[in-house]
Amino acid sequence: MIKVGIIGGTGYTGAELLRLLVTHPEVTLQVITSRSEARRTVAELYPNLRNYADLVFSAPDMIKLAGCDVVFSATPNGIAMTHARDLVEAGVKLIDLAADFRIKDINVWQQWYGMEHACPELVAEAVYGLPESNRDQIKQARIIANPGCYPTAIQLALLPLLEQDVIDPASIIADAKSGVSGAGRGAKVETLYAEVADNFKAYGVGGHRHHPEIVQCLAAATGKEIGLTFVPHLTPMIRGMHATVYARTDKQGLDIQSLYEARYEHEPFVDVMPAGSHPETRSVRGNNTCRLAVYRPGDGDQIVVLSVIDNLVKGASGQAVQNMNIMFGFDEQTGLQNPALLP
Amino acid sequence: MIKVGIIGGTGYTGAELLRLLVTHPEVTLQVITSRSEARRTVAELYPNLRNYADLVFSAPDMIKLAGCDVVFSATPNGIAMTHARDLVEAGVKLIDLAADFRIKDINVWQQWYGMEHACPELVAEAVYGLPESNRDQIKQARIIANPGCYPTAIQLALLPLLEQDVIDPASIIADAKSGVSGAGRGAKVETLYAEVADNFKAYGVGGHRHHPEIVQCLAAATGKEIGLTFVPHLTPMIRGMHATVYARTDKQGLDIQSLYEARYEHEPFVDVMPAGSHPETRSVRGNNTCRLAVYRPGDGDQIVVLSVIDNLVKGASGQAVQNMNIMFGFDEQTGLQNPALLP
Amino acid sequence: MIKVGIIGGTGYTGAELLRLLVTHPEVTLQVITSRSEARRTVAELYPNLRNYADLVFSAPDMIKLAGCDVVFSATPNGIAMTHARDLVEAGVKLIDLAADFRIKDINVWQQWYGMEHACPELVAEAVYGLPESNRDQIKQARIIANPGCYPTAIQLALLPLLEQDVIDPASIIADAKSGVSGAGRGAKVETLYAEVADNFKAYGVGGHRHHPEIVQCLAAATGKEIGLTFVPHLTPMIRGMHATVYARTDKQGLDIQSLYEARYEHEPFVDVMPAGSHPETRSVRGNNTCRLAVYRPGDGDQIVVLSVIDNLVKGASGQAVQNMNIMFGFDEQTGLQNPALLP
Amino acid sequence: MIKVGIIGGTGYTGAELLRLLVTHPEVTLQVITSRSEARRTVAELYPNLRNYADLVFSAPDMIKLAGCDVVFSATPNGIAMTHARDLVEAGVKLIDLAADFRIKDINVWQQWYGMEHACPELVAEAVYGLPESNRDQIKQARIIANPGCYPTAIQLALLPLLEQDVIDPASIIADAKSGVSGAGRGAKVETLYAEVADNFKAYGVGGHRHHPEIVQCLAAATGKEIGLTFVPHLTPMIRGMHATVYARTDKQGLDIQSLYEARYEHEPFVDVMPAGSHPETRSVRGNNTCRLAVYRPGDGDQIVVLSVIDNLVKGASGQAVQNMNIMFGFDEQTGLQNPALLP
Repeated sequence: MIKVGIIGGTGYTGAELLRLLVTHPEVTLQVITSRSEARRTVAELYPNLRNYADLVFSAPDMIKLAGCDVVFSATPNGIAMTHARDLVEAGVKLIDLAADFRIKDINVWQQWYGMEHACPELVAEAVYGLPESNRDQIKQARIIANPGCYPTAIQLALLPLLEQDVIDPASIIADAKSGVSGAGRGAKVETLYAEVADNFKAYGVGGHRHHPEIVQCLAAATGKEIGLTFVPHLTPMIRGMHATVYARTDKQGLDIQSLYEARYEHEPFVDVMPAGSHPETRSVRGNNTCRLAVYRPGDGDQIVVLSVIDNLVKGASGQAVQNMNIMFGFDEQTGLQNPALLP
Repeated sequence: MIKVGIIGGTGYTGAELLRLLVTHPEVTLQVITSRSEARRTVAELYPNLRNYADLVFSAPDMIKLAGCDVVFSATPNGIAMTHARDLVEAGVKLIDLAADFRIKDINVWQQWYGMEHACPELVAEAVYGLPESNRDQIKQARIIANPGCYPTAIQLALLPLLEQDVIDPASIIADAKSGVSGAGRGAKVETLYAEVADNFKAYGVGGHRHHPEIVQCLAAATGKEIGLTFVPHLTPMIRGMHATVYARTDKQGLDIQSLYEARYEHEPFVDVMPAGSHPETRSVRGNNTCRLAVYRPGDGDQIVVLSVIDNLVKGASGQAVQNMNIMFGFDEQTGLQNPALLP
Repeated sequence: MIKVGIIGGTGYTGAELLRLLVTHPEVTLQVITSRSEARRTVAELYPNLRNYADLVFSAPDMIKLAGCDVVFSATPNGIAMTHARDLVEAGVKLIDLAADFRIKDINVWQQWYGMEHACPELVAEAVYGLPESNRDQIKQARIIANPGCYPTAIQLALLPLLEQDVIDPASIIADAKSGVSGAGRGAKVETLYAEVADNFKAYGVGGHRHHPEIVQCLAAATGKEIGLTFVPHLTPMIRGMHATVYARTDKQGLDIQSLYEARYEHEPFVDVMPAGSHPETRSVRGNNTCRLAVYRPGDGDQIVVLSVIDNLVKGASGQAVQNMNIMFGFDEQTGLQNPALLP
Repeated sequence: MIKVGIIGGTGYTGAELLRLLVTHPEVTLQVITSRSEARRTVAELYPNLRNYADLVFSAPDMIKLAGCDVVFSATPNGIAMTHARDLVEAGVKLIDLAADFRIKDINVWQQWYGMEHACPELVAEAVYGLPESNRDQIKQARIIANPGCYPTAIQLALLPLLEQDVIDPASIIADAKSGVSGAGRGAKVETLYAEVADNFKAYGVGGHRHHPEIVQCLAAATGKEIGLTFVPHLTPMIRGMHATVYARTDKQGLDIQSLYEARYEHEPFVDVMPAGSHPETRSVRGNNTCRLAVYRPGDGDQIVVLSVIDNLVKGASGQAVQNMNIMFGFDEQTGLQNPALLP
């Protein structure tokens, strides 16, 4: 049993971490912090956890956090970096679900996230927590930069093609659709029910923070310079993310189905569907799987990859638990075995 | 490990049984039947179960079913009764998720369900599977009539009041709202997305099959003659049921909060919320809990009980698994421990 | 052509007023105010009105408002009362879509709305704008208290029964379900998409501001003392309200269908459906109709009335336009003739 | 006043035609046919039309249809072609909302629609009813092939670029998302609420009937050979369609914003939004507008066009009414002036 802390557990990724951790057989939830909800019980905020967790939110307190084996930071961007040095020095592993440690180029990070970085020296050692790319490094990491939801769905869609060098890396298109929980639990007019329901729109077409993350990590993983057009959309569902990825190839007679099946054969959380399938987001609702299907319409030069995840699970808290499992030597699937909720 | 069969596993209650049983530590899924989908894999129909169940639907076959310890019938009404005699004679326990064994008065049943009953002699011995009423009988039963979703939510809301004799049993109102999955997975215009979304309506106000079930079972449990006005509504959500129950009392100074807490203190799947709470259906999404809150507005003569369940779990398949656990002496919560999916 | 002003046009009732008024043949939109959005165009906030209205939001300015024939106040509670004296003195009619003039008893109002009333002397003369009750008074009114959404749906359900003295006025139950737009366009966690979608709950069971409004107005309209249990619920839809109203009768052989048809025969915006119907909220989406159906299940002592409106139309802005039509001698249906959007 | 008939008015495009035509000042609805619903009233099937249309569905009857000035066929594919010869010979204009007259190459049509064409000789003369391409021909047409919903959204997104020859016509990608009403009102498991809600998926990636329609019509309109990758998706909303179109350009310093504004300056139903906008599907809900925004992210070689329509209006029945207006010399906007319903 390891001791686990959560910083900022009141948002959707925090709630999802709690949902996954209260039944995880290897962890004890030690502390959960929230400035705004200090002294309220977890069950009051999340009635689905009544009788599961008798935890109480507390104000952040480094002494309590330093007593943990691992701390998840489920706060907005810019908070985890203020705790990182203390935690690392106390020998506590840190898994940041926000973006503080995702971008290696500090200038790029500061430009996109609009603040100064509090611990640039730790960014270099932080490991990008996409197990399908970096499993060995994750085992040794002190700080995990847990990937964003769009980057997870899109990278898993593209890794096999880029690694095998069968597409033009300079003209990739990722048309992605996200459920609304991805925008967080903050009170904003744009994510009100009456604004979002029965409605569909693109957003951030001029530029989105996940663009540099995807480009950097695909480049790092495959050694190629990536040209990416990335268009995110908001779709009226609670959870779920669907990336439709387009890549150009000039390879004739390519067996892309086998290429994907071989690449992900031993990955417990990537499922390559049979040829001709259309993965549905609900098939991973509440579950840590990324489900993929690949097409080459009319045997032309475009490859189309369909990739679905639950943005709160494989796109956030589930992947964070997967990373924890890897870091502490547990079976990678521990606590993540339940099938998706369908319908 | 017990051997389990499912008859008619292609509808929503069948899918939900599968979701719950594939991770249940005490069962082996032996056979799942479907005339229409025979020879297709379960994973093909329910991609959330890929890599969980390598079962294949087969045509109904009594020899295979007779080799099971327990068979769930998740078919439309009128099918389970045609298998019941054979199963019982073969020593197989039967849990019927449809209505074939719920109504003791065969004439009433035949009138509401529009067919002749195939085994009236077994109806008498069948046990109505509401554990909060009938736990001891369930332990010994050969046939379980698994309760309907509305009857579950409404009976759990009313049992404490009726048992303690504090309301007028002749003037109860149950205003109930159901998610659409309660209408099943059959192709019907009325449950198409474009008919149901962003829409709300009552239905069956002139009469609904669950009315005689509720009245009979409340009468049986409490020895009172019940007068019930029952109005079901269809609400645009996938899962979830909310019953708002109104009952008249002339008792002054009644502590209804304590009355409910005492009644359900030892029930693992009934959660009485603190006074002033409003249970949400999503707080039980995918979970077997019935969550209750009680009010007496303005200290007047009306008591209001709010009762939520997931119609596919406590209202169907979860309760069926709970019944199985009781029948076979497993811990009653086995396989039903995961918290609800929220958001 | 009359000159129309709108105070506080950025919320949902303001947007709906705009939608209805831009095609109303008898009005010119003169001014629309908003402190927070001053200098933004209406089209920027409401792209559905691009090319319909080239209005710009302006800070509230009594000189401009005083030049109008009628001003709609679509602000939160407590604002209209601060403008009322000036408008009335300038000879401008005021239609308040909020609650400032709905409750005649100032103490009751102050208790429920938590503020001091700014012009109690005007409350007495204000006319409650339910045309089906008060059409003649509306014609002469200087100030209209436009009814709340729940009160509209529930009063129209009950008026025929109370007026004909066929029910017990002391034991009425109104179980009402509202779409989320009724909660307004303010940024609140509770009305975020990810909180409300696929979820159903009651709220305000301990007490709701519409309770005194309903009780007062039904009493005023029928001369009876009203006992009402009122339970509102939030249902995952954008627009639409469904009230299920229960009332006890001891009258035998009552023809309630004819009673309703006779009462509303000449009402352009109340539609009594044929016996056995179940009105759907979508059948009035975007439309000013209240659609009703009446039942007496099992010929017992309970009458059940089903009542649907669009909370933003007959429950707010449409009714406000209907009141304006009456006040200015236009055909009552002017600008309100389009059928509901279905599906 | 012209006399109008509708063949097959029970589906969603039929319902939408009725909604638009009952308030159209230049038409009298003469006859509406439906085999399955013959003798039921329109109001029974579509309660939003109670008190608007006292029409009764009748079995198809050529004598009655031949007395009309124009007949809309809102049937499944393959029906309009069986009536076309009789109608044309009787001097009745035919507007087919299905696909019978959309594809000029009969073999291609027969391959995609799986049946033999009943009147190939009339296909040649039929005019493709996209007013923004073919307004002059529409004026003279006897038969209108009303465009599909995807083809409308995608062609309007691409016409300016192809006409001005600024993109590579051989590598276009159209990633399109449709509301569920596009799948029609037939009872199918795949479009049940509980299948579609809170879910997102692609479909028909291997091939979709709208692909040849888009390619043919863009080629006809612009004289270019078109290479198109088309991926449709199903999104959980009732109405609305969003096409995200990607096209490659090598033109430097192109002012695409002006290019679009100039192209559509005089089009009453195409709205080019200001640079930086993201059109929402709800901004056209119930309305005949196509709303567009154009981007060139990072000034690179990809142009991104966002295009939204209401699939039942500009994507079907509204466009059909627009075509009728053009054919009969009415103002093109007659009966189509109401703003979209938002929220």
